[in-house]
Amino acid sequence: MNHLLVREVVERALREDVGRGDVSTEAVIPADDRSIAVIHCRSRAVIAGLGVAELVFATVDPDAVFYPAVEEGDPVSSGSEIARIEGRTRTILNGERTALNFLQRMSGVATQTRGIVRAVDSTGVRVVDTRKTAPGLRLLDKYAVRMGGGANHRFGLDDAVLLKDNHLSAAGGVAAAVKQVRGRLGHMVMIEVEVTTLDEVQEAVATGVDVIMLDNMDPATMRKSVRIISGAATVEASGGITRETALEAAESGVDVISVGSLTHSVVAPDISLNLLEDDA
Amino acid sequence: MNHLLVREVVERALREDVGRGDVSTEAVIPADDRSIAVIHCRSRAVIAGLGVAELVFATVDPDAVFYPAVEEGDPVSSGSEIARIEGRTRTILNGERTALNFLQRMSGVATQTRGIVRAVDSTGVRVVDTRKTAPGLRLLDKYAVRMGGGANHRFGLDDAVLLKDNHLSAAGGVAAAVKQVRGRLGHMVMIEVEVTTLDEVQEAVATGVDVIMLDNMDPATMRKSVRIISGAATVEASGGITRETALEAAESGVDVISVGSLTHSVVAPDISLNLLEDDA
Amino acid sequence: MNHLLVREVVERALREDVGRGDVSTEAVIPADDRSIAVIHCRSRAVIAGLGVAELVFATVDPDAVFYPAVEEGDPVSSGSEIARIEGRTRTILNGERTALNFLQRMSGVATQTRGIVRAVDSTGVRVVDTRKTAPGLRLLDKYAVRMGGGANHRFGLDDAVLLKDNHLSAAGGVAAAVKQVRGRLGHMVMIEVEVTTLDEVQEAVATGVDVIMLDNMDPATMRKSVRIISGAATVEASGGITRETALEAAESGVDVISVGSLTHSVVAPDISLNLLEDDA
Amino acid sequence: MNHLLVREVVERALREDVGRGDVSTEAVIPADDRSIAVIHCRSRAVIAGLGVAELVFATVDPDAVFYPAVEEGDPVSSGSEIARIEGRTRTILNGERTALNFLQRMSGVATQTRGIVRAVDSTGVRVVDTRKTAPGLRLLDKYAVRMGGGANHRFGLDDAVLLKDNHLSAAGGVAAAVKQVRGRLGHMVMIEVEVTTLDEVQEAVATGVDVIMLDNMDPATMRKSVRIISGAATVEASGGITRETALEAAESGVDVISVGSLTHSVVAPDISLNLLEDDA
Amino acid sequence: MNHLLVREVVERALREDVGRGDVSTEAVIPADDRSIAVIHCRSRAVIAGLGVAELVFATVDPDAVFYPAVEEGDPVSSGSEIARIEGRTRTILNGERTALNFLQRMSGVATQTRGIVRAVDSTGVRVVDTRKTAPGLRLLDKYAVRMGGGANHRFGLDDAVLLKDNHLSAAGGVAAAVKQVRGRLGHMVMIEVEVTTLDEVQEAVATGVDVIMLDNMDPATMRKSVRIISGAATVEASGGITRETALEAAESGVDVISVGSLTHSVVAPDISLNLLEDDA
Amino acid sequence: MNHLLVREVVERALREDVGRGDVSTEAVIPADDRSIAVIHCRSRAVIAGLGVAELVFATVDPDAVFYPAVEEGDPVSSGSEIARIEGRTRTILNGERTALNFLQRMSGVATQTRGIVRAVDSTGVRVVDTRKTAPGLRLLDKYAVRMGGGANHRFGLDDAVLLKDNHLSAAGGVAAAVKQVRGRLGHMVMIEVEVTTLDEVQEAVATGVDVIMLDNMDPATMRKSVRIISGAATVEASGGITRETALEAAESGVDVISVGSLTHSVVAPDISLNLLEDDA
Repeated sequence: MNHLLVREVVERALREDVGRGDVSTEAVIPADDRSIAVIHCRSRAVIAGLGVAELVFATVDPDAVFYPAVEEGDPVSSGSEIARIEGRTRTILNGERTALNFLQRMSGVATQTRGIVRAVDSTGVRVVDTRKTAPGLRLLDKYAVRMGGGANHRFGLDDAVLLKDNHLSAAGGVAAAVKQVRGRLGHMVMIEVEVTTLDEVQEAVATGVDVIMLDNMDPATMRKSVRIISGAATVEASGGITRETALEAAESGVDVISVGSLTHSVVAPDISLNLLEDDA
Repeated sequence: MNHLLVREVVERALREDVGRGDVSTEAVIPADDRSIAVIHCRSRAVIAGLGVAELVFATVDPDAVFYPAVEEGDPVSSGSEIARIEGRTRTILNGERTALNFLQRMSGVATQTRGIVRAVDSTGVRVVDTRKTAPGLRLLDKYAVRMGGGANHRFGLDDAVLLKDNHLSAAGGVAAAVKQVRGRLGHMVMIEVEVTTLDEVQEAVATGVDVIMLDNMDPATMRKSVRIISGAATVEASGGITRETALEAAESGVDVISVGSLTHSVVAPDISLNLLEDDA
Repeated sequence: MNHLLVREVVERALREDVGRGDVSTEAVIPADDRSIAVIHCRSRAVIAGLGVAELVFATVDPDAVFYPAVEEGDPVSSGSEIARIEGRTRTILNGERTALNFLQRMSGVATQTRGIVRAVDSTGVRVVDTRKTAPGLRLLDKYAVRMGGGANHRFGLDDAVLLKDNHLSAAGGVAAAVKQVRGRLGHMVMIEVEVTTLDEVQEAVATGVDVIMLDNMDPATMRKSVRIISGAATVEASGGITRETALEAAESGVDVISVGSLTHSVVAPDISLNLLEDDA
Repeated sequence: MNHLLVREVVERALREDVGRGDVSTEAVIPADDRSIAVIHCRSRAVIAGLGVAELVFATVDPDAVFYPAVEEGDPVSSGSEIARIEGRTRTILNGERTALNFLQRMSGVATQTRGIVRAVDSTGVRVVDTRKTAPGLRLLDKYAVRMGGGANHRFGLDDAVLLKDNHLSAAGGVAAAVKQVRGRLGHMVMIEVEVTTLDEVQEAVATGVDVIMLDNMDPATMRKSVRIISGAATVEASGGITRETALEAAESGVDVISVGSLTHSVVAPDISLNLLEDDA
Repeated sequence: MNHLLVREVVERALREDVGRGDVSTEAVIPADDRSIAVIHCRSRAVIAGLGVAELVFATVDPDAVFYPAVEEGDPVSSGSEIARIEGRTRTILNGERTALNFLQRMSGVATQTRGIVRAVDSTGVRVVDTRKTAPGLRLLDKYAVRMGGGANHRFGLDDAVLLKDNHLSAAGGVAAAVKQVRGRLGHMVMIEVEVTTLDEVQEAVATGVDVIMLDNMDPATMRKSVRIISGAATVEASGGITRETALEAAESGVDVISVGSLTHSVVAPDISLNLLEDDA
Repeated sequence: MNHLLVREVVERALREDVGRGDVSTEAVIPADDRSIAVIHCRSRAVIAGLGVAELVFATVDPDAVFYPAVEEGDPVSSGSEIARIEGRTRTILNGERTALNFLQRMSGVATQTRGIVRAVDSTGVRVVDTRKTAPGLRLLDKYAVRMGGGANHRFGLDDAVLLKDNHLSAAGGVAAAVKQVRGRLGHMVMIEVEVTTLDEVQEAVATGVDVIMLDNMDPATMRKSVRIISGAATVEASGGITRETALEAAESGVDVISVGSLTHSVVAPDISLNLLEDDA
């Protein structure tokens, strides 16, 4: 990830949460009071976002020190310590909610991804995300998918071509659409076409596109499509795939399955921060 | 909501998704091609975010026209048309994913909120959110909570005081903490104290704070706390409250229950956009 | 104060003053020339803004070291040294005017505030500011008020409710207005109502609002209002209060007086910076 | 003025004041309610900032219409209507304080400037400002000086050279400093030298600089300096000049007097906004 | 192109050129004076950037009207009128230099590209650009390449993989490097490998990469490489190719030649703007 | 130069090039791998931009160390090492292209400038630039001109007056235009008038302007103009001056020649970066 972009997301989140200043903490906690805080995860989860959490505290105060207790992408059991922060108490309380919000979202995405990746493990099929991410957080959402063992589909409308039904009908069919794209774009851009019928599969193969997306096909049609394509393009299954249906889709012989819910419906693991008592 | 802030969130989301430009659409769709698109919601949901979706398309092209088919906060059944857009086909395809991402997140929040609001309807207790929102989207998340029938807790660390255990122990107890806050802050800021035991409840009442948060108490202790407070402060129940446990918490006599999952674990309703066929 | 916001104000001010570069200094002062500078205050004043001045020089060059000679909020006599800077001569000359502009404005506000706070000292009444601040400098203006011994009214249109005559008449009276506000806002927002007559005072008390602002009342009416309210709400006197009239207003029994001139008409103390002679 | 810069200052001010949204107005004023508002000036003043006030309302809502009743730089007597706004009531209440804050600061600067300009009217000497402006508002402060009949000194450290004692001693005297500047800068930059003694005046004349600033000289020394310079450079008097001392300074024969208090100590005229009653 | 990005580039350029305001024009041209201006190209050129020039004037003043006289990518002879602007004279003079600077750079790029495209016309080989663009202007530089008949290589380090010698040696050879890339990246990213010897060509083919870049090879080695690759990957010739050497490179059988000088060494055509005389 | 502005240009360039992240390097180069890189210039050139290149790497990672091998403005022969960087290999590869793009543009400008400066060396005439710079890079372009031995004309429309034919005719002639400018602007702004005939020269002299630009005059007319002006103003020759025609223009007796091609048509020297082999 481009760290200039991540820094911007973190600063924006802190400005949103801290607003004009943390009035409770400024009133009550002396400026030079120091603490150690521990972050625990109180549910089973795959952890992602420790680097972002670290950056949150470093943005509040560069002198805060962040010690991750696990690595990005590590699965943890409920109750695990995942990080520790040493620094001014004000810094810790200022950054607490923002850091946890990042950790909870990103670990939620990673955990969800890992679940589906495991479900299709036997097939060797790749699980990829979509552009259905939280607005403003795409880079982090997609990073979390990788930490969960998934891979990334395109990052935006600009880094790969995906021709959907609207494009195809506007262009006058698959062949015409692909030709127009090839005429306008350079040789470094992947071209994917979305198809829904076996006829369209055949048309797509004929154009020599790089990737063919089987949209909302039943498993039987998927299998037939895979046979038609027969290695001439990467095959992606898409459309409403869940943890329950993932294995059947994967066993159809496709190379990749894309899953919107990895990032559009995320359950946050229970992650919280506590200051250590000074002594006993 | 401050529309300057919403405009910024929308522009950021569009820049994230469109990146350097929508290569598929620019290659295939003529610049002057026009379409009508319909947005449907394919699950039961409470709709929120239509104004934001409208702004997405208007930001791409001020000439696009957006017709909402329902009102913000309306519950809809599966299959309902919720909006229609007329404009250049390129505009519609450029803004599609960004608009849907906002609609799905915000309607997800509103739908979830409505569920809990309904659950405690008989009690007259208010359901409020927390600061556990998606980083960068707090204003929209909290707006969606209102559309779902909930109300908002504070928006950041700056607009109200909430003294938690760390503040209280650093200050040397509830009384000292509240005194310090009163000395530093003006008369326009609400003061809330988080308590976990009946002793702390009593201490808090004695300080005359505005709001007392009962943190993770069982229903019996909540009822006792309410009796002790007896109208001297607003009473908020907090801590792991779910749709299942909301009613019992509400029936304890508290004024408000706050629920983190309204915004930290959001399930997106299935909302999609389709171009209308040109003719029959 | 949120230091990300202060940093932004400081960078903006430096960009405004330095523009494309300090052509005089770049032409004449060698890059490695170092100096010690002293900042004196040449009039009686209450000092505020040392931290902001420090940030100005640190933004020009992190290696500059700033030594405050007094503390924020300290009153100084004419001729007092208030700070010292060691660093590259170019850094000092680059930041000089910007740092002084902040110090002069903020110390002006603090000095003015201290004057009125002293005037009402015997009454225990609090002196608070308004939103009549220099555009873009509200956070610093309000901080300076605190350094002068005052307290802050709301920071913007978002962090507390203030219902003025226009709101009241649009809503159909005090009772209706307060009801609408309570229906829309959560339990963490203070509600203040502006009243001008004793009838309105009584109406306001009946709604149970948190704060009642007596707008432009003469002292006798203020006293009567205080008796009517009788502790049911915080009472604020407002409208053209000056250092001369402050005591009489305060003695009416109100809790708070708000004074626009604290920030809208600020006289800058004479603060200047000099390089120390090298010696001989 | 560059309107892109002014637009930025206005948006920043609105974001500062409106924050997350105008909670009072959103709760009480219907979205489609419309009003006419009048802005009065309740003290004698020279008006400046009407264009900025107009931009404030237009930024909140492009449909608001602003009718100035006087022209920029017009002197008005107490009680004069200076502008009228028609638009949505919400728009007017949202922008009110921000618009007034600009108008009060800018008219304060213009009024103050006019006072000193009048005082030296008989001499034909120009009154100019300094860089002692409110951080972030320099462009507007300097515009207001022009509206008050004054002229502008340099806008920043970049658009003209001003060699002060520190520069001169670092360079090894006036002649050396001017030579270094001429070697580094192009032919489009004015060079001014600050002098405090008659010897320095002579030195400065010898270098052929464009402007000589007589710093904190008494009137007699100023007169002698003017005689020495004798038209070879523009002569500027500077240092603690007030409305009381301005005429004496001006009568010494200098071309220009610069006055810091035009912008560093500004008294706001009393300007307020009222909604017109709907009917009778 | 994403118009939000183009708008930002245009605003930045205007702020850079107009600075604090166009002092000459504000002093001399009445605010309501209107003119018609004509833009001529006084050398042979391929025109690009008319849309950007239009946006420059529209940013200064939305009421200015811009009439292009030719289309983007059109070749023009010396002396051709290429556009006309109607609007306030101040607007035209404010935007003049900025609009011309864009037009001259972009038309320079397009003209240069067209020259090389023509040179290899007989071969059907594509001419593509590199990342050697003017910092901050990449989107416009690459757009201009397309207007000149060229195509684009990748837009940044993020939208395609290019493994150069440093990557290959760090990874331990071509095969290892490609394997690592495939393990980390999704299926929507093109992979290109840079090779300098025939052995490396063979290695690259074996990995199944999408594109092979022949770096600084002589024509004979290129021909051999093309034979080895034999359609298994797109072949790109790169390294110091000029208009003089382009044809020989193209005739080696490669698919694409990439040329840094398209954007790193641009000769501006002579484009200027004149106000039409009012009449006779 | 204002380092806050340079930092912004550098960050923008890095964001443009790195985009969402350097996918090749992140996939292949271990995070802790370190290298030494050398930057060579492979053509004769005057070097400028080393400080900017250093800032590029420091922005990617503050721990990278940059060792310039030559000084800004040094002429180098082909093959010279000009800098060395030590740091993480990822940092070096991330910043490589951006750093080189700055170095190539700036050294190209400096080299070109040096050529013309040398050509007129015997005359003592100054070579200055224009506002025909790459949009967004003016500060760096003008810095590079100085490094090549040239000087700068004005930096924007705001820091000096240049009255061209359109201004003159709108104002009703040179005298009227200059008078209007003097009435509106302070005493710190240079005034230049563009003239094309000897009559206009005489008019301009009469107004006492600071600088007279002889626009597109032949050498004979220039000589006559210089005689007429006779030291009453700085004389600038302008209009299509090239390296070939520069000497003749300079020998006419003018003080300054301005040359647009210094910055509008820049040939990049061949500058490249290589990682040093680890060992032998």
